[in-house]
Amino acid sequence: MSDDVPQEISEGVTKITDTKSDNHTVFVGPKPFMNYVTGVVMQFTTQSANEVVVKARGRFISRAVDIVEVATKRFLEGQIEIARDGIKVGSEEFENKEGKQVRVSYIELSLIRKN
Amino acid sequence: MSDDVPQEISEGVTKITDTKSDNHTVFVGPKPFMNYVTGVVMQFTTQSANEVVVKARGRFISRAVDIVEVATKRFLEGQIEIARDGIKVGSEEFENKEGKQVRVSYIELSLIRKN
Repeated sequence: MSDDVPQEISEGVTKITDTKSDNHTVFVGPKPFMNYVTGVVMQFTTQSANEVVVKARGRFISRAVDIVEVATKRFLEGQIEIARDGIKVGSEEFENKEGKQVRVSYIELSLIRKN
Repeated sequence: MSDDVPQEISEGVTKITDTKSDNHTVFVGPKPFMNYVTGVVMQFTTQSANEVVVKARGRFISRAVDIVEVATKRFLEGQIEIARDGIKVGSEEFENKEGKQVRVSYIELSLIRKN
């Protein structure tokens, strides 16, 4: 189930969510782990974001949690946290290349500045 | 990071959380996917649980989300849901076999009966 997410769908989601200009989103995929951690940290530090949403699908869900933990516990410890009600999980059904209905799970983790 | 969870630690967690007699917990590991889905469903149906917590560490986090989605959207659709504030993520540091400090992420998803 998890390995069945076509890349074009992941990219589609990123594009849709990025149309909101105030929306700081990091979409987790197969690039090196630290790319995503840096992406999150930089949005808070150099881009002055107040909220950064880390999204992932399928097998990248575990990675998204790792990235959030490293960002909050190591790089920006004491400065950012997971928002209250800031974790959502869900799933979407779509048709894969073989015409089969498959369900893919996703996670969204919302990080905010600590007061 | 994700693949560094020794099995004995995963099992330890299950044992600790299961000491509370009213606690229905499913700890996700490498067994066949449907074992865990059945585990969740059975606790609601044959064991009359009001809450079942699905826990996972490291790379099994993605699986835990898949299991919760299949249980809520397919097997017990309309009957159970993720509790409000029912998703927790976090991480723990521990020393691995080589004496190195490693951090492992975890997720806990709390499922309840729908009203």
